[in-house]
Amino acid sequence: MAELRRDPITGRWVIIEIDKAKNPSDYEAEKRVKREGVCPFCPGNEKMTPPEIFAYREGDTKPNAPGWQTRVIPNKFPALRVEGNLDRIGVGMFDMMNGIGAHEVIIENPDHNRELCDLMDQEVEQVLWSYRNRCLDLKGDKRFKYILIFKNYGVSAGASLEHPHSQLIALPIIPKRVVEELRWAERYFEYRDRCVFCDMIHQEIDERERVIAENKSFIAFAPFVSRFPFEFTIFPKIHSAEFSYIQKEEVVDLARILKETLLRMKLALKDPSYNFIVHTSPIDAKERADYHWHIEIMPRMGRSAGFEWGTGFYLNPTPPEIAAWALREVSL
Amino acid sequence: MAELRRDPITGRWVIIEIDKAKNPSDYEAEKRVKREGVCPFCPGNEKMTPPEIFAYREGDTKPNAPGWQTRVIPNKFPALRVEGNLDRIGVGMFDMMNGIGAHEVIIENPDHNRELCDLMDQEVEQVLWSYRNRCLDLKGDKRFKYILIFKNYGVSAGASLEHPHSQLIALPIIPKRVVEELRWAERYFEYRDRCVFCDMIHQEIDERERVIAENKSFIAFAPFVSRFPFEFTIFPKIHSAEFSYIQKEEVVDLARILKETLLRMKLALKDPSYNFIVHTSPIDAKERADYHWHIEIMPRMGRSAGFEWGTGFYLNPTPPEIAAWALREVSL
Repeated sequence: MAELRRDPITGRWVIIEIDKAKNPSDYEAEKRVKREGVCPFCPGNEKMTPPEIFAYREGDTKPNAPGWQTRVIPNKFPALRVEGNLDRIGVGMFDMMNGIGAHEVIIENPDHNRELCDLMDQEVEQVLWSYRNRCLDLKGDKRFKYILIFKNYGVSAGASLEHPHSQLIALPIIPKRVVEELRWAERYFEYRDRCVFCDMIHQEIDERERVIAENKSFIAFAPFVSRFPFEFTIFPKIHSAEFSYIQKEEVVDLARILKETLLRMKLALKDPSYNFIVHTSPIDAKERADYHWHIEIMPRMGRSAGFEWGTGFYLNPTPPEIAAWALREVSL
Repeated sequence: MAELRRDPITGRWVIIEIDKAKNPSDYEAEKRVKREGVCPFCPGNEKMTPPEIFAYREGDTKPNAPGWQTRVIPNKFPALRVEGNLDRIGVGMFDMMNGIGAHEVIIENPDHNRELCDLMDQEVEQVLWSYRNRCLDLKGDKRFKYILIFKNYGVSAGASLEHPHSQLIALPIIPKRVVEELRWAERYFEYRDRCVFCDMIHQEIDERERVIAENKSFIAFAPFVSRFPFEFTIFPKIHSAEFSYIQKEEVVDLARILKETLLRMKLALKDPSYNFIVHTSPIDAKERADYHWHIEIMPRMGRSAGFEWGTGFYLNPTPPEIAAWALREVSL
């Protein structure tokens, strides 16, 4: 038998298989083929990338030379370009804009083979500080409305280079899914005078069934309405709408929980491809009482089929309760 | 340079690469591996499937035996089940329903190796009549709010069996994406007293740049705001909100255009995996003036990455103008 569950954050219904639920061992492990050729993100090859925007570096090393720990560069093949003014036009019944935006790559560490979950806590912290630093800088550009930080790991998650990296896109519009999240959260707040995400965090802390990891500032759980098998989310426990307002202590806790949960996922699911996305509030002055930033982590465990793409209606063969249990049970 | 285009039907923005646009030859062809083992959908193996619900058959052949041309069966591993009452409950802050619904498989033709685009026109018509027949039957069940017809072709589009088949799911809810389409269409209608889809069809007929095929009753074009490379849509030219109201003449024209465009896609893109989805209005009494049924066809040309999943914001490396041109240019 299946259950239909509705996500209070987006109004999305998901079919969750209960009786014939799939365990981690029911999924085939992805084959990882090491790529050949020179890696443009490795130390010594700095000239192969556009000049760096920002880097954490050892003592007196120079920009665009080895000695960096985390390095931020413009994407060589950007989806959007930073130069020019934003022009909006109508084309018959359609709306159009030129592709203004920023597209940056955060090279997480110099070692080609060490992923986020293999790093020292402090190294992960530096990656997070790089995210924050770039957000604060780009927020000054009045053309941008939203900053999207995400990571694609593995070929089937869309990564085109192997060297550990994340990406950042600054957009002149607020993406649709974010608008939806904001609207539903606003509606919930109007009705209850509480943040829907805060309520969800409280319910998960009470029930514990879907919790994967927790520390002083953060909690990671598999959402009650998971669309994908083994999907999970990391939330700051104290209400905050915007990632870039993160405090020093919180960066320490976030680095720990991110590293731990990614490692649990790697071990439980045999190194799956995955995406993570930082969901944060749009660039605007007010600190929203109704929105709560978070990181969504989605391993790629199988392929999505036609009706899921076309309808926003998902079928998840692994209940989040089983997913959380499997990730919790991993011995580190 | 890229363009940002906004879909008037969903409000979605899509980044479309213009300068370094990808042509069909820039995509790698998918490897098709023939599967081993007995096919439960082939004639002679009728006992391997649940008993048939409906079939087009030769003269006096018996149900669940060879002699059928198109055969409809319940899905052996249904996402939803047809037995029972619909129960809705709250679980803390969440909403839940039991998994009531119907999940059927339309086996399109007896031949394991003949896909829709390889069939005779009349055989495709029979598949379409089967869709319609099942819709009309399921519309009588008061528990259902929406009927979803879709097809997954190829492993990377989520097909788990090779034998040509489509699927139908009757749902106790209206899927999110459909609700969104309805709302945006309603808003457009309120403002202009015209169907947004009718307007779009007129604009495409005027401009012709994105049109792939056309006949008396139907038009196929690559939408101005295509999310995916080579995505296209088939619309009835005369306004109609619901697929199941299709008339006899229209079935003939739809079979022809569907077959033709699928064949163009197969030849131009080297037999890609694809999904198609019939978008139709929910099951309710009124014939909507603001909605227009259509079929969305999405070849799987590469993988979607993290920010697309997380944001509903897409990056399409092939402009629909090039996609339509490539599909039009195929010599049949």
